[in-house]
Amino acid sequence: MAAAANKALNGHKLLVLLGNTFQPEWISELKQLFSGLEIVTVEGCIWNTPAFEEKFPEKEWKDVTILVTGNALPAAHIAPKLEYVQIQSAGANHILQNPLFNSTDVALCTASGVHGPQIAEWVVTTFLAFQHQIPQYIDFQRQKTWHKLDDPVDDAVGQRVGIFGYGAIGRQIARVVKALGMDIHACNLHPRHTPESRKDETYTPAGLGDPEGVFPSKWFSADDTEGLHQFLSSGLDLLVITAPLTDRTRGIISRRELALLAKKKAFVSNIGRGEVIITDDLIDALEEGTIRGAALDVTDPEPLPDGHRLWNTKNLFISPHVSGNSSSYARRVFEVLKYNLIRMSEGKELTNKVDKSKGY
Amino acid sequence: MAAAANKALNGHKLLVLLGNTFQPEWISELKQLFSGLEIVTVEGCIWNTPAFEEKFPEKEWKDVTILVTGNALPAAHIAPKLEYVQIQSAGANHILQNPLFNSTDVALCTASGVHGPQIAEWVVTTFLAFQHQIPQYIDFQRQKTWHKLDDPVDDAVGQRVGIFGYGAIGRQIARVVKALGMDIHACNLHPRHTPESRKDETYTPAGLGDPEGVFPSKWFSADDTEGLHQFLSSGLDLLVITAPLTDRTRGIISRRELALLAKKKAFVSNIGRGEVIITDDLIDALEEGTIRGAALDVTDPEPLPDGHRLWNTKNLFISPHVSGNSSSYARRVFEVLKYNLIRMSEGKELTNKVDKSKGY
Repeated sequence: MAAAANKALNGHKLLVLLGNTFQPEWISELKQLFSGLEIVTVEGCIWNTPAFEEKFPEKEWKDVTILVTGNALPAAHIAPKLEYVQIQSAGANHILQNPLFNSTDVALCTASGVHGPQIAEWVVTTFLAFQHQIPQYIDFQRQKTWHKLDDPVDDAVGQRVGIFGYGAIGRQIARVVKALGMDIHACNLHPRHTPESRKDETYTPAGLGDPEGVFPSKWFSADDTEGLHQFLSSGLDLLVITAPLTDRTRGIISRRELALLAKKKAFVSNIGRGEVIITDDLIDALEEGTIRGAALDVTDPEPLPDGHRLWNTKNLFISPHVSGNSSSYARRVFEVLKYNLIRMSEGKELTNKVDKSKGY
Repeated sequence: MAAAANKALNGHKLLVLLGNTFQPEWISELKQLFSGLEIVTVEGCIWNTPAFEEKFPEKEWKDVTILVTGNALPAAHIAPKLEYVQIQSAGANHILQNPLFNSTDVALCTASGVHGPQIAEWVVTTFLAFQHQIPQYIDFQRQKTWHKLDDPVDDAVGQRVGIFGYGAIGRQIARVVKALGMDIHACNLHPRHTPESRKDETYTPAGLGDPEGVFPSKWFSADDTEGLHQFLSSGLDLLVITAPLTDRTRGIISRRELALLAKKKAFVSNIGRGEVIITDDLIDALEEGTIRGAALDVTDPEPLPDGHRLWNTKNLFISPHVSGNSSSYARRVFEVLKYNLIRMSEGKELTNKVDKSKGY
């Protein structure tokens, strides 16, 4: 969409269908920034109902150039000027098949990057809580016992974290663990040999993440098994899985891979998708002490049913797919929108744009 | 002790009385660095016993210039060449009254700085565990229940931490919370108006802490009540107390000070000394909801006796004065020693040197 600059966004019309989560002052901020931008917020009614049609008649669509939406999308012919659709989820699979995108060159932008801070906090907290024996001290407190554990804590300084999936989330994890004094190995599904290829232009809250790709001391590629195994054998104390679920990553961490973590008994943290790890193999690795512990925000199966073996596995923390939740979520979706409107007004490419041929 | 350079430390003799915690390869490292340095390690016997005298006869002391010790110290007259004593604790009060320091200008250096990483981890982990409702999810896991809490998590981005005592520990806390996206207000017992006064030359593990004093967005001084109250009223979400216990700080955080934290219901973290906070006032603030929660690694009284009200106080985490423990402790004491030997060999001032007139 790189085009001529249009500082005021003259002639543009923005329709916000997330009126219940977007604050009025955010809309005011956009009006201040772009004097030529018409903004319509529709809330309090359900998409494609008479109430919606009453609030936003079909003829209103013909001038809409920018749409912020959850799942709702117009047919292509009723919004012929549409250029840019901003969604509030990080993944686009559920929406990419919509004819609107098949048949037009409307830009679809995800909210990728809005999860980075809270998920990085979850990963660091659950790892350090394990290292610092916090669950045991919670128990002692409940027993009203002033009791020191004998084992000294291994603090994070000099420990090595391997981040499998060095995207927006992995990069914020890297920023925090770097400050803790940890060494970072990055692994992506495709090789990143040049400094340019190691950059990431996904939205990142200001001052956070690693947009330039400078924190890892070593880069690996899991495009073949050898590369993955080199990564897992590189002396990791902590393995963090943020990689998306694809045909390549389904079940990619099995008994054989977990055995490669035995040297330093790495801690395994999964905030990607449960199916990336073979659950039974993880349980064995934990019970046999191949790895020191694990934290799972995602499981396979999910939700984890009553009576599943994972509930009784030792050295394991489980939370019910909540690590991405944050009271700042909507605010960050707005920040992505604002950032892209600024880029649009400067005639620049949008960020977080889905490559329709790749599907992400 | 600034003096002429002596790269090989010719003529120096180092006596290591921490042989049980110092590894042989560390001693080898020193021998590699300083070809003129004689090193004697005494271990496996108790100070001032015949066994000790047998391993290290009194006449051996006469050439000792550098001593690494826990508490044991020679009389001044038997070690007339002694220049530098390195102890393994951060505080020097227990040792400073020894005649060795009263009657000579032997430099006494503490291990200040070796606690920074592990205590910063404890502070960040206990705060974020509270924010992310980790204790509740531990309970759900034990109940084998896949249950999401309704309240969204307030992640750390944009929250403000006030660090009361911006020394070696506070500076490492600052490094980590900066990476989390937090804003930092620093408060010391004496004003720090100039960039020079904001520096800290205490030992810090390489790449950690904030030796230049660049992370805080605002500096406060608690040299009077008004300054302290300005700091506590500056919109803090998290108050971390690392200040030492002195006549000035004993009971300095009472009901009146906790009330100043009510606006944002700050979380209070204490890793300094329990007596800095009035315990009953803290309990009231937690029970009444003036503050959102607290984490205490130190308490008043300590150890916390059976039946004390603190054991039953809500939104509180207690650990039994363990946040400074680390399996890397001895290694970091060695790093302080090595750093100082390098400085000595270059004719520079030692770091972590106690100002005998101030007592720290």
